[in-house]
Amino acid sequence: VNTLKDIAGYIKAKDPFILATHVSPEGDAFGSAIALSMALDAMGKASLVYDRDPVPEFYTFLPGWQRVLNTLDGTRTEDYNLILLDCNDLERAGLEGKSFKDTAVIDHHITERDFGRLRWIEPGTAAAGLMVYRLLKELGTPITKDIAVNLYTAIAVDTGIFRYGNTSPEALKSAAELVEAGAEPDTVAEGLYETWSPGRFMLFAKSLNTIQFSDGVAITVVTKKMFEETGTTSSDTENFPGYARVVKDIKVCALIKETDPGTWKVSLRSSKDTDVASVAQAFGGGGHRNASGCTIKADLETAKELLLKKIHERI
Amino acid sequence: VNTLKDIAGYIKAKDPFILATHVSPEGDAFGSAIALSMALDAMGKASLVYDRDPVPEFYTFLPGWQRVLNTLDGTRTEDYNLILLDCNDLERAGLEGKSFKDTAVIDHHITERDFGRLRWIEPGTAAAGLMVYRLLKELGTPITKDIAVNLYTAIAVDTGIFRYGNTSPEALKSAAELVEAGAEPDTVAEGLYETWSPGRFMLFAKSLNTIQFSDGVAITVVTKKMFEETGTTSSDTENFPGYARVVKDIKVCALIKETDPGTWKVSLRSSKDTDVASVAQAFGGGGHRNASGCTIKADLETAKELLLKKIHERI
Repeated sequence: VNTLKDIAGYIKAKDPFILATHVSPEGDAFGSAIALSMALDAMGKASLVYDRDPVPEFYTFLPGWQRVLNTLDGTRTEDYNLILLDCNDLERAGLEGKSFKDTAVIDHHITERDFGRLRWIEPGTAAAGLMVYRLLKELGTPITKDIAVNLYTAIAVDTGIFRYGNTSPEALKSAAELVEAGAEPDTVAEGLYETWSPGRFMLFAKSLNTIQFSDGVAITVVTKKMFEETGTTSSDTENFPGYARVVKDIKVCALIKETDPGTWKVSLRSSKDTDVASVAQAFGGGGHRNASGCTIKADLETAKELLLKKIHERI
Repeated sequence: VNTLKDIAGYIKAKDPFILATHVSPEGDAFGSAIALSMALDAMGKASLVYDRDPVPEFYTFLPGWQRVLNTLDGTRTEDYNLILLDCNDLERAGLEGKSFKDTAVIDHHITERDFGRLRWIEPGTAAAGLMVYRLLKELGTPITKDIAVNLYTAIAVDTGIFRYGNTSPEALKSAAELVEAGAEPDTVAEGLYETWSPGRFMLFAKSLNTIQFSDGVAITVVTKKMFEETGTTSSDTENFPGYARVVKDIKVCALIKETDPGTWKVSLRSSKDTDVASVAQAFGGGGHRNASGCTIKADLETAKELLLKKIHERI
């Protein structure tokens, strides 16, 4: 396991870079990668930002979102030094089979894999964006307004705008410094939460109507049919998974999303004292203590039953 | 106008105190008053906390909420030194006609009044709780976990948990320190927002499914039948009216609630630049620029039509 200083050394020594993050990306993935790419610019180093999936329209408030490439076709990846952000293996980044000049990982997810010559992994840190912020301080690159907005967004998304149990003193103190550097908390909050399409809203309404409560667990379903009826896609469900937590005494929220007929992508969110990482692991998935995910192949009713049973075993 | 140091001097010199805050209190009022009262305990000084209105049930997660007295009957107020918190005149605190040994004001609201021998007023500060935090630092009293929770809650409530434009570096930095002192962001957020009944959630889901969008206007309906089916009442729709603002470019949200057959109570919410007071007035109602209400007697479709027509005339 490597440290901040190792990664700073890697960045100082190498050029050019590919900064890649996970498929189905969210604000921590984008914000971390875009901010680091801007800092590399300031160091006179070249970088490509890669994510297999497109930037959802509502993330286009992030300065520099246009940097994100959705293909590396035509790029000789073996000439580039990889930095994986907010994930820790090639599969998760949609880069399976590619080779690179050198490889490094910056992530805050628990993992048992060992991809990367350099691996800086801190499961106790609230957001990859916090690690990148520490890295930029170590490198001494200026924190411009654009970088500040990206890193503030990264922290805001992964802490539920400072509502989750991972809202550490470091998250709040870094956010304070990023506001001093030009990030605007109200603009970010609006960008994240007041930009839904009417279709997304209809999808939200439809999904809420599927909700079932069972002894502290709330299960919500999104089917392919709902996506079709509302003209939405999988990325429109961001923020849906934890919503039922407004209900008193809900310990676990599960969102079950149909990706292919009979294939359900499950997102789990839990209150502080409840561990859902092990639930996801039981189905071959993974994640954090309070936010995890997995895939279940079964018909809907069976998938729900299996999931509920496993959740009730573990909580 | 006085300063932090003047108020610190007042507190050091005097004893006992009445700490009073405004009627219809919220987290900044309670948190500021309770925290200051605990600090006075540590200084060996006596204090009463007064609010004319009772503590709402969902604020009973605040440590020390039991300190709040709703009457000063039997208290010789003229033997006490008053500190008004989060307000700046006796009327707003429900104390009109009372007299005190000495008087001081700690507030962050703009005012043209001049109540108080000492007046420490900072309209640029996000929360009264931030001013109290600065005061406790100046006084050198320990920031216990209970004090930290109260002050964190004060800041969280007045910044919409760090979403509003007043979310200053000081607000975030103080929050970081208060988390270090023992405040738990997720516990506070749960205390403030995660107290819905399942029935209320079902009502919310049903109401969202009625939504209609029309050129920047979103109309949502709640019928008597929905209340019956979910075992809820009219007060369960608090926070529903503005919800559709998450949709991009929505200027006006209208919630139409059936109070009696054929009678619809309308709540209007608008974005900053749109005035809905005049719409409500056109139907004999009233309210503020961005939040107003009225009643329409008609069948549902007619009520919606009349309302939409009037809104589109005015915006």
